[in-house]
Amino acid sequence: MTQINSNFLNLQGSYLFSEIAKRRTKFIQDNPQAEIISLGIGDVTRGLPEAVTKAMHAAVDELAVPGTFRGYGPEQGYDFLVNAIIENDYKARGVDIKSNEVFVSDGSKCDVGNIQEIFSTDSIVAVQDPVYPVYVDTNVMAGRSGLFDSGIGRYENIVYLDCTAENDFKPSLPDRKVDLIYLCYPNNPTGMTLTKDELKVWVDYARENNCLILFDSAYEAFITEADVPHSIYEVEGAREVAIEFRSFSKTAGFTGIRCAYTVVPRELKGFDKDGSEVVVNDLWNRRHTTKFNGVSYVTQRGAEAIYSAEGKEQISGLVDYYMTNARIIRDGLASLGLEVFGGVNAPYIWLKTPKGMDSWAFFDKLLSEANIVGTPGVGFGQSGQGYFRLTAFGSRENTEKAVERIRNLSL
Amino acid sequence: MTQINSNFLNLQGSYLFSEIAKRRTKFIQDNPQAEIISLGIGDVTRGLPEAVTKAMHAAVDELAVPGTFRGYGPEQGYDFLVNAIIENDYKARGVDIKSNEVFVSDGSKCDVGNIQEIFSTDSIVAVQDPVYPVYVDTNVMAGRSGLFDSGIGRYENIVYLDCTAENDFKPSLPDRKVDLIYLCYPNNPTGMTLTKDELKVWVDYARENNCLILFDSAYEAFITEADVPHSIYEVEGAREVAIEFRSFSKTAGFTGIRCAYTVVPRELKGFDKDGSEVVVNDLWNRRHTTKFNGVSYVTQRGAEAIYSAEGKEQISGLVDYYMTNARIIRDGLASLGLEVFGGVNAPYIWLKTPKGMDSWAFFDKLLSEANIVGTPGVGFGQSGQGYFRLTAFGSRENTEKAVERIRNLSL
Repeated sequence: MTQINSNFLNLQGSYLFSEIAKRRTKFIQDNPQAEIISLGIGDVTRGLPEAVTKAMHAAVDELAVPGTFRGYGPEQGYDFLVNAIIENDYKARGVDIKSNEVFVSDGSKCDVGNIQEIFSTDSIVAVQDPVYPVYVDTNVMAGRSGLFDSGIGRYENIVYLDCTAENDFKPSLPDRKVDLIYLCYPNNPTGMTLTKDELKVWVDYARENNCLILFDSAYEAFITEADVPHSIYEVEGAREVAIEFRSFSKTAGFTGIRCAYTVVPRELKGFDKDGSEVVVNDLWNRRHTTKFNGVSYVTQRGAEAIYSAEGKEQISGLVDYYMTNARIIRDGLASLGLEVFGGVNAPYIWLKTPKGMDSWAFFDKLLSEANIVGTPGVGFGQSGQGYFRLTAFGSRENTEKAVERIRNLSL
Repeated sequence: MTQINSNFLNLQGSYLFSEIAKRRTKFIQDNPQAEIISLGIGDVTRGLPEAVTKAMHAAVDELAVPGTFRGYGPEQGYDFLVNAIIENDYKARGVDIKSNEVFVSDGSKCDVGNIQEIFSTDSIVAVQDPVYPVYVDTNVMAGRSGLFDSGIGRYENIVYLDCTAENDFKPSLPDRKVDLIYLCYPNNPTGMTLTKDELKVWVDYARENNCLILFDSAYEAFITEADVPHSIYEVEGAREVAIEFRSFSKTAGFTGIRCAYTVVPRELKGFDKDGSEVVVNDLWNRRHTTKFNGVSYVTQRGAEAIYSAEGKEQISGLVDYYMTNARIIRDGLASLGLEVFGGVNAPYIWLKTPKGMDSWAFFDKLLSEANIVGTPGVGFGQSGQGYFRLTAFGSRENTEKAVERIRNLSL
């Protein structure tokens, strides 16, 4: 009998967005006339920047003929893209990253999901709550979570770092020994950030307590405030303790063409069973080259084009577009007396449900009375109960219409 | 102290193709005038078919504007591609596959590497020897291999199924209980195949002994003989015991743009710790949707185009081109009195090194005296010692030149 990985049986229900899709589909079946506005899943809606499509067309043409055809590329990404990343995302901010520290991939979801593989299954994992479900689910699959306690809605061996309005969404340091800390800033789902000094507290903690930070910075491009770091490596000492994940998905509309990257500094060390130091970069390189075969050449040329002068201008236009939506939602809801968070350095608005409503009850109310799909905060964790996420990724027209509809609700 | 996954420390040396690249680079440094012909790594060299590039250009244009922009797609692949796969690769051969049994991915290397995750780490794994290194290395990483015995050059807990000229490269059934059997047909690296009756022996064995077959059929498009099955599901009962991996990499020149798929029939069952049946398709679906976010829309449109009338004709031309190369190599070497295998239903020629030379010694001789890069058989396992792989993926000109150069060697 072939035994399965029984850890999978500890996974809870279906993925948050499947449940949303199910309720949405049912509502549409029952109300075929309803004009639904989706501000739920964090997917972009604008077209790809022209610089990107131009580069992709040129790349397709290169692949059409033997003289310029390219087959397997370096699993870690082509130099042209790795160098553009280093120059523009790091060197321009005074951060020195080497080319063998950058691993181009087909998405941050894959990278943040796969990174745990290179660590011991005994590692104690800490996550923010609310949290992007992939961090937790991939550790459940690997056997690090222990059982799910349905009474409290949490896994017994995961350390949850609560982020609520009470602590301004800034979690306290772990109250027990942990090995791996997932931090996401600008945060999904709350849209909140840490200043450089606040992030330094975490880097110092990791250095003093021999743990590692897995820093998801997929929304970095949306930062507008000066004291919010764009990279964890802007903080002194972070190279010794942090892996950083970046994505082109939201920055440049790459959700459908897939490109991201992960930085693993050479200074980062783990320990084997005998307590000997192991260079984590070597492990990730081995994992990446053994189980992955590089990102589409066409996509990589598209990503490179983001860093051209034309590309930068177009990206900046895209980010402005979405951040204007964010302001419209934020200001609109605030003017109704709702408590709103995020939306200043991130394309997410996190709101406290009115009158202490349960997240899913508010979801149903918004869907049935305003025909708006959002994301129930509790879907991201227990500390998200009573909160709700709206995204700024819709069209301007729909965003304005959505705010108008909410204005007409009795809340 | 953050502990690493110590199983990684059991991995042996660097990946085969890194060692080849190292020796090649050194040779070029020492002999800058040498005109190297590479028949080593199995990478294609022709341009993408016109039907594919046309479809990719159209897809890029769709992504350029909000009206036709597509962001996140289904993780399992778009219906347009899944349906084309089902109709053309299966229904046309009398095999019935449902759409929820097909999982489109960014490469078979990823899929055959990741599939082991859904099974218990206690599973006993059997592989053919010689073998594609990814099957073994990913099981080492997961902790299924036990330690490497450098005396015999094998991992203690992996069951190796020898494939040599003595058994016509048709392995015997395992001599002890195994849970997962990796079979690759048409085989990489030997280029050899099984007939339908021979494959049925394995399916029957798996059914009788409660084990599963992981069937890698990346080279299916190169089959020319009528009694060689294109899919394991042509064999009765295979739906209960086999997962099949297919790739567009070699068929259509997709090595640089990344697309493959995996079929997991709903009948396939594993068992949990209590002996209860678990539907393996559900596990893989959960793994795929949690750690992966779909293949580039542009690539998927390119893959769909392979199944158009125009696309099929162009693919057939590509396959003919490479298989003519295969015949040139095979016949050329055979005429020199070398013992050659494969090359009839696969783009690989597997040859016995002359005078019982060691595989790496023959590599060095071929590199230094004929300036040809091939792949030492022993790099694929102990049973590959004394063998050597040449690929048919070069240009016609280089392929003919390579055979001519070998003709002039003193062997």
